Amino acid sequence: MNDPNCLFCKIVAGQIPCHRVYEDANVLAFLDIGPLARGHTLVIPKAHFVTLDQMTPQDVSVCTAVLPKLSRAVCRATGATAWNILQNNGSAAQQSIGHVHFHIIPRAGGDTIGYRWNAGKLDAADAQSLIEKITGSL
Amino acid sequence: MNDPNCLFCKIVAGQIPCHRVYEDANVLAFLDIGPLARGHTLVIPKAHFVTLDQMTPQDVSVCTAVLPKLSRAVCRATGATAWNILQNNGSAAQQSIGHVHFHIIPRAGGDTIGYRWNAGKLDAADAQSLIEKITGSL
Repeated sequence: MNDPNCLFCKIVAGQIPCHRVYEDANVLAFLDIGPLARGHTLVIPKAHFVTLDQMTPQDVSVCTAVLPKLSRAVCRATGATAWNILQNNGSAAQQSIGHVHFHIIPRAGGDTIGYRWNAGKLDAADAQSLIEKITGSL
Repeated sequence: MNDPNCLFCKIVAGQIPCHRVYEDANVLAFLDIGPLARGHTLVIPKAHFVTLDQMTPQDVSVCTAVLPKLSRAVCRATGATAWNILQNNGSAAQQSIGHVHFHIIPRAGGDTIGYRWNAGKLDAADAQSLIEKITGSL
């Protein structure tokens, strides 16, 4: 076990049960017990990372590589033709369990979930400032 | 160009400008012109895929491998310590451009964006049915 206090590490270790839909050497996927929609599935790395920035490119790649086939399977099982992939980092971003997890959330027209899309407009001067800061931090 | 009618393919080809923050052989990242938060960034594969299920594991891995470093850079540039990774598939899932893109959305406590978290409760019998259907489709 990576973090003895982490709920998802306990699930990975088999100490707490889950509704498993997929498992390989590096990744586990199971149904969310508090689903936003029928078929809501979580995909997690077996290794413990609190947030995405703690992962190497390889760590992320191994985990996300299963998203296409799991997306297809969740859609076939539920009849959904639309879905969100969502991964939250930090409590202010609605992360409730401190172990990286990717949500697969089936969507349907007229459902009452989804992201609040209050789009602004990018200011040209601020864009230039952001580009300099972001590229300067890479 | 992969799809001459696709806005993001035109951006990849340099026919339409963007506020570029990162580029490599396979991936382009630029500021969203309709930001949900300051620093809202899009990460796209240069190749054209409408939705995630059209991508191979390798296609997805190459694209998501840059998310940790771009997340760190966006957070450093904006001062954010929380963020969402969001990838929408299908118009019912709020996908507005038919070319796969990962949103990096900086978050702050008290902001008015985020996912509508109307969680239900997983029914045990339905969970078993879903597991059979999902694993049977993998």
